[in-house]
Amino acid sequence: MSNKYGVMFVGLCGHLSTTTMIGAIALSKGLCPPTGMVSASDLFNNVSFADISDFYFGGWDIRSCSESRLIMRDTNFADHDQTEKIAQTIDGIQSLTFPGILLNAGDAISSLSEPDHIVTSNSISSMIDRIQADISTFKEDNHIKKMVVINLASTEPPLIDTDAASSIDAIENIIKKNNTHSIRPSFIYAYAAITSGCAYINFTPSEAGLSRGLVDLAHKHHVPVMGSDGKTGETLVKSALAPMFAMRNLEVMSWEGYNILGNMDGKVLQNEENGATKIKSKDRLLPHILGYSPHSRVSIDYVPSLGDRKTAWDFIHFQGFLNTKMNLQFTWQGCDSALAAPLVLDLSRFAFLALERGESGAMHHTASFFKSPWQVNEHSLEKQFRMLEAYCEKLV
Amino acid sequence: MSNKYGVMFVGLCGHLSTTTMIGAIALSKGLCPPTGMVSASDLFNNVSFADISDFYFGGWDIRSCSESRLIMRDTNFADHDQTEKIAQTIDGIQSLTFPGILLNAGDAISSLSEPDHIVTSNSISSMIDRIQADISTFKEDNHIKKMVVINLASTEPPLIDTDAASSIDAIENIIKKNNTHSIRPSFIYAYAAITSGCAYINFTPSEAGLSRGLVDLAHKHHVPVMGSDGKTGETLVKSALAPMFAMRNLEVMSWEGYNILGNMDGKVLQNEENGATKIKSKDRLLPHILGYSPHSRVSIDYVPSLGDRKTAWDFIHFQGFLNTKMNLQFTWQGCDSALAAPLVLDLSRFAFLALERGESGAMHHTASFFKSPWQVNEHSLEKQFRMLEAYCEKLV
Amino acid sequence: MSNKYGVMFVGLCGHLSTTTMIGAIALSKGLCPPTGMVSASDLFNNVSFADISDFYFGGWDIRSCSESRLIMRDTNFADHDQTEKIAQTIDGIQSLTFPGILLNAGDAISSLSEPDHIVTSNSISSMIDRIQADISTFKEDNHIKKMVVINLASTEPPLIDTDAASSIDAIENIIKKNNTHSIRPSFIYAYAAITSGCAYINFTPSEAGLSRGLVDLAHKHHVPVMGSDGKTGETLVKSALAPMFAMRNLEVMSWEGYNILGNMDGKVLQNEENGATKIKSKDRLLPHILGYSPHSRVSIDYVPSLGDRKTAWDFIHFQGFLNTKMNLQFTWQGCDSALAAPLVLDLSRFAFLALERGESGAMHHTASFFKSPWQVNEHSLEKQFRMLEAYCEKLV
Amino acid sequence: MSNKYGVMFVGLCGHLSTTTMIGAIALSKGLCPPTGMVSASDLFNNVSFADISDFYFGGWDIRSCSESRLIMRDTNFADHDQTEKIAQTIDGIQSLTFPGILLNAGDAISSLSEPDHIVTSNSISSMIDRIQADISTFKEDNHIKKMVVINLASTEPPLIDTDAASSIDAIENIIKKNNTHSIRPSFIYAYAAITSGCAYINFTPSEAGLSRGLVDLAHKHHVPVMGSDGKTGETLVKSALAPMFAMRNLEVMSWEGYNILGNMDGKVLQNEENGATKIKSKDRLLPHILGYSPHSRVSIDYVPSLGDRKTAWDFIHFQGFLNTKMNLQFTWQGCDSALAAPLVLDLSRFAFLALERGESGAMHHTASFFKSPWQVNEHSLEKQFRMLEAYCEKLV
Repeated sequence: MSNKYGVMFVGLCGHLSTTTMIGAIALSKGLCPPTGMVSASDLFNNVSFADISDFYFGGWDIRSCSESRLIMRDTNFADHDQTEKIAQTIDGIQSLTFPGILLNAGDAISSLSEPDHIVTSNSISSMIDRIQADISTFKEDNHIKKMVVINLASTEPPLIDTDAASSIDAIENIIKKNNTHSIRPSFIYAYAAITSGCAYINFTPSEAGLSRGLVDLAHKHHVPVMGSDGKTGETLVKSALAPMFAMRNLEVMSWEGYNILGNMDGKVLQNEENGATKIKSKDRLLPHILGYSPHSRVSIDYVPSLGDRKTAWDFIHFQGFLNTKMNLQFTWQGCDSALAAPLVLDLSRFAFLALERGESGAMHHTASFFKSPWQVNEHSLEKQFRMLEAYCEKLV
Repeated sequence: MSNKYGVMFVGLCGHLSTTTMIGAIALSKGLCPPTGMVSASDLFNNVSFADISDFYFGGWDIRSCSESRLIMRDTNFADHDQTEKIAQTIDGIQSLTFPGILLNAGDAISSLSEPDHIVTSNSISSMIDRIQADISTFKEDNHIKKMVVINLASTEPPLIDTDAASSIDAIENIIKKNNTHSIRPSFIYAYAAITSGCAYINFTPSEAGLSRGLVDLAHKHHVPVMGSDGKTGETLVKSALAPMFAMRNLEVMSWEGYNILGNMDGKVLQNEENGATKIKSKDRLLPHILGYSPHSRVSIDYVPSLGDRKTAWDFIHFQGFLNTKMNLQFTWQGCDSALAAPLVLDLSRFAFLALERGESGAMHHTASFFKSPWQVNEHSLEKQFRMLEAYCEKLV
Repeated sequence: MSNKYGVMFVGLCGHLSTTTMIGAIALSKGLCPPTGMVSASDLFNNVSFADISDFYFGGWDIRSCSESRLIMRDTNFADHDQTEKIAQTIDGIQSLTFPGILLNAGDAISSLSEPDHIVTSNSISSMIDRIQADISTFKEDNHIKKMVVINLASTEPPLIDTDAASSIDAIENIIKKNNTHSIRPSFIYAYAAITSGCAYINFTPSEAGLSRGLVDLAHKHHVPVMGSDGKTGETLVKSALAPMFAMRNLEVMSWEGYNILGNMDGKVLQNEENGATKIKSKDRLLPHILGYSPHSRVSIDYVPSLGDRKTAWDFIHFQGFLNTKMNLQFTWQGCDSALAAPLVLDLSRFAFLALERGESGAMHHTASFFKSPWQVNEHSLEKQFRMLEAYCEKLV
Repeated sequence: MSNKYGVMFVGLCGHLSTTTMIGAIALSKGLCPPTGMVSASDLFNNVSFADISDFYFGGWDIRSCSESRLIMRDTNFADHDQTEKIAQTIDGIQSLTFPGILLNAGDAISSLSEPDHIVTSNSISSMIDRIQADISTFKEDNHIKKMVVINLASTEPPLIDTDAASSIDAIENIIKKNNTHSIRPSFIYAYAAITSGCAYINFTPSEAGLSRGLVDLAHKHHVPVMGSDGKTGETLVKSALAPMFAMRNLEVMSWEGYNILGNMDGKVLQNEENGATKIKSKDRLLPHILGYSPHSRVSIDYVPSLGDRKTAWDFIHFQGFLNTKMNLQFTWQGCDSALAAPLVLDLSRFAFLALERGESGAMHHTASFFKSPWQVNEHSLEKQFRMLEAYCEKLV
């Protein structure tokens, strides 16, 4: 019996997918420690996670792949020979990239696409068929036991009607009537994955990739879903710091956050509508944690020279005893993909675990991984993490 | 029957004592909201805390008092008339200041003292008698029901032998043999308070103010004790942020913290031996929270122009996936007394609550208030806070 | 013979005007040192500047005045009695405020106006007459020798055609044809001031307040003009730091600047068109100093809780030897009015000096005071300052 | 006739020497632009500097060499093949390293030394002979026309008597009497270089490497000398920023600077006496630029994880108009060697220029390159730079 685990990425050629695969290979070869992987923490020693060396990668993209050597060079963790070997393995995987969906993706994403790499049909249902077929091919070619599909593609513009896919019936109606304006590409992948028996993870903030209807569908098909929007940088720090103000009854008057970054993510978010989706996702947590809404701002600007080195400056203006005004400011200088990639591996492991245990629907215990955890109102990092610990304790 | 609560400060003329009393009066008059007071948080609405307007203040000092108008002017929360009224009330209280203990206090503290304000005896036991008599006088003069003594004095040098007072017997032996080198002034106050039936709070890092023997003594006399070292600024932020690195399995390589401040606290800590006590207290949490000891530094420097406006810069160098090096830095610009004063009121309330409920010994549920919580190994702010919540839930 | 100097402010009720007058009174009374005043520096000991105690203040506004006590309380430099005396003097001055011009001022500014405080005519020429009459009244009532009019009003939207007032003829034509869309309020004040024999200082970035035609007019009327846009904070630091990168041949790849502030200035700049004028002015210096245009950004956001406490974070990403990427970031926490007010007094003094020496037209030697110095291409603070030193050396 | 230029480093195996040679080779091969080199700036296009490809490198060290590949990998500017070629060239140069002087170098430096790499004699004069012979050998072997010796070794402890070498006579007396306690290794190299007709550059803060007597000796031997202590990071920023406060008559109350770094330089400076030399050098400029001495601090701490990535946080607390307190803070994240190496090449070029023009003694026009420019009281970066520009203008 096969113990192979399939991981298919939406956005296989992107910086994050590539870094995740580099990391998986490096871990399998013992070239670096699993630092940054939550599931590798001593806390979870007793949980039987899938072995990373049993992961098989594949996926879709709307453009060709070319970044593996560049990323390896920036990362600089391996010597020349290892770099070359890993890059060749990645090349092999990426040469099999399936064409991607561009339906109603918006201008910012469309402008990145290459003609040869796009599924050309205009009917939602035929696109779903196509993605389902890709999954089937990948599964059979690689003798896969369990499968997860993870959306790592660029942030889509917001949905015109976020309630459009609020039930299985509504979803089926959209497909039947080919209401292309009610969906985005992420919907196609999510639908195809779930109906093919794959776990599905919406690592992006794209709203079409996770909805009430899709969660119902996941229950129906006995698969787990997770999302949305991986919490890797500024929002992570916010979710650790904001509870401090609440616990000390200090009044946050203003929390202003400025993010600058230079990768493809930054380029797409520069587009006003795509940026709006992201900012909505990042700006959710303060009212939940504090119990009131301070003046707040989340801005994201594209600064090409930074590349994948995301920098955020947050200024927190707060009031204490005797109306005394004070402030805390932080600068976060993180490497976007290096922060996100281990979480992608973590979530895959939690998805395989859930599949094996027959769990279905939204996996609330993974809330700590997301900026907008599906139907979890808890945004304090520590309280979210307790949910993960509680889940794991029950497993043993 | 009286419902008056007595609060005696060691260091009654200091910036923190004065700010605490200003705050208590301002709260009683409704001049400002209880922002910064944990016990005033909505979370604890169901707990019957002592009313701040029932607090009566007094205490000891080794020098004369003169700062109330200065602090009022800096704070700037009240208009001229209210300022004058409050300052006069404080003047009235501080005019009754009892002389302080200077036994083995070290040069930095001794240099601040004024001859008229010092207890002159050289015998430990007669000094204890004196402090007990002061407590008794204060209690009777003000018809006090419950009493707490809170040490807010300057940080003393470390003890030569931290185990000297490890049992009631050891303590009695020190007093009997008048082993003055084994103690510091904070010991005298703690002993006198406990044996007089007062709750005792060691808000400073001074090691002589809380020990195994003193906790045993507290049990014997049925009084609660709390300490040590109020967690108000940089360490508070650390205890909120450090768990984030642990939860994400990110490796903290170095955590360098630089504190600059300009108040009396800063002046005394400038002295190498007094500073050592403080730094020891501040540097405790990282190994507990992370599970390993990164390169770390806590430095405290005296910058007179800052006055009470404490500024801290922390640089956290960490390693993530694929050995990627990243960093987080924060600058905390807080007002020392405005952060500490509401906690002094909070702890007094928790002390009165414990006295009323007949609780004795170390109050572990107050861990979140301290840098070095007595015999609590938990340093994560959120986990400490859960202990407080759990305690309060049981009360209702 | 009178030695009285008249200073009339456009925006007499604003934070900056009020702070400037508070400062002038405080200096006359010897209540604080002239820190922050360039003309009071030892470097200019030999220059005979007008005495601040001989300054008489007045001016215009579109709204009523109410901030003097508030500002005094924030500033907190004087005791209660002095505060009351100074506030009463300011009240006396501000009670004589002349109604202001709102012609084509844009929505953001118009929304601040009060009906009783606006000049109601719609003809440019009659508005000019009105302002000229105000100047005349102020001069005669106070027996003024020399006069300066200083524009401290909110930033106006950009001009539709910045070349509209490029000659005296063009200006006269605008007035004759009553081309109201070609001008903004600042034009009216500048024209009236110059033709009344007053020096005129455009301390704001408003484009209508200084133009080729107005400079020609100043020559014709033998008066000096200065501007535009007082350099007080982030841009000041930039003009000191940017030359460092040029002198070391380090390549600035990106210079991202984020400004947050909470005063009226910030509120008006929040409006997109008014903000555009300001940002254009702030963003001028890098290409001049560096010799190339790095990726750069100047953003200004309104954060009410900050009040007059302006905070700026600048992130400078630069490349050095062997393509090594490095960065410098700074946080500037300044008090807007306290930085600008002394420069207003300085510029008044330089204006009176020029009037007395019969100098006319643009005063290039004052370039170091402005973000957009009129027809001076030098933006390095130190090189601009040399121009001031050279001018003063010639005086002696 | 040869046009070869010889450059001998004291500390040939160190990070900075190695980076300088890597850079020189990379520039010669056209692998990267001369960013960071002052002499390559457009400003000096008309000056005929020595061609970097004509530089020949050699020198001394007290330990063996091993860092070239490591540095190449960190720098990451070249591909694998180029990296290998450059590293082999460096290996060739470093295999010819002459043994170094350890006389009275102090414990921190001595602990880094390796027995085979030390000149064993204990007589000053025989050590000088040895170094002179090394210079002679290097010169002849490589057919060198002009020579410069540059001290890039670790910072030595302060001299016991900084006036010991205040004249040529005093110097000769020290050598004659073999007063080893009056000197440090840098003295030996400086003396040998100057008397061998080489230019000498004291790029370190070591006090023995530049003195009144050595400057006199340089005049006698018709060679130029430069120093001390390359200005590459925090002090560079200070010398650009401090004049801003002076020009605006703002009162700097406190300037607190904290440096953390992880290279060998940091390790040696961790030693109290070596650190003292450095801090003395860094702390010189504020009183000169401001005209008064604010509270100031320069601290340097060793944080191994940072490697060559030096980070500095400076907090500047200043007072402006109406006694308003404000602050500016900056964080400088530079790469130590990448900042210093191009200056080493610049200074070599200026040394060769001076040799060719027959200039001798201290080269005051190079003040902008140094933290402690020899007998130049000007510390403003821009004013120092004017001296360099003036020198170069005269050349043309």
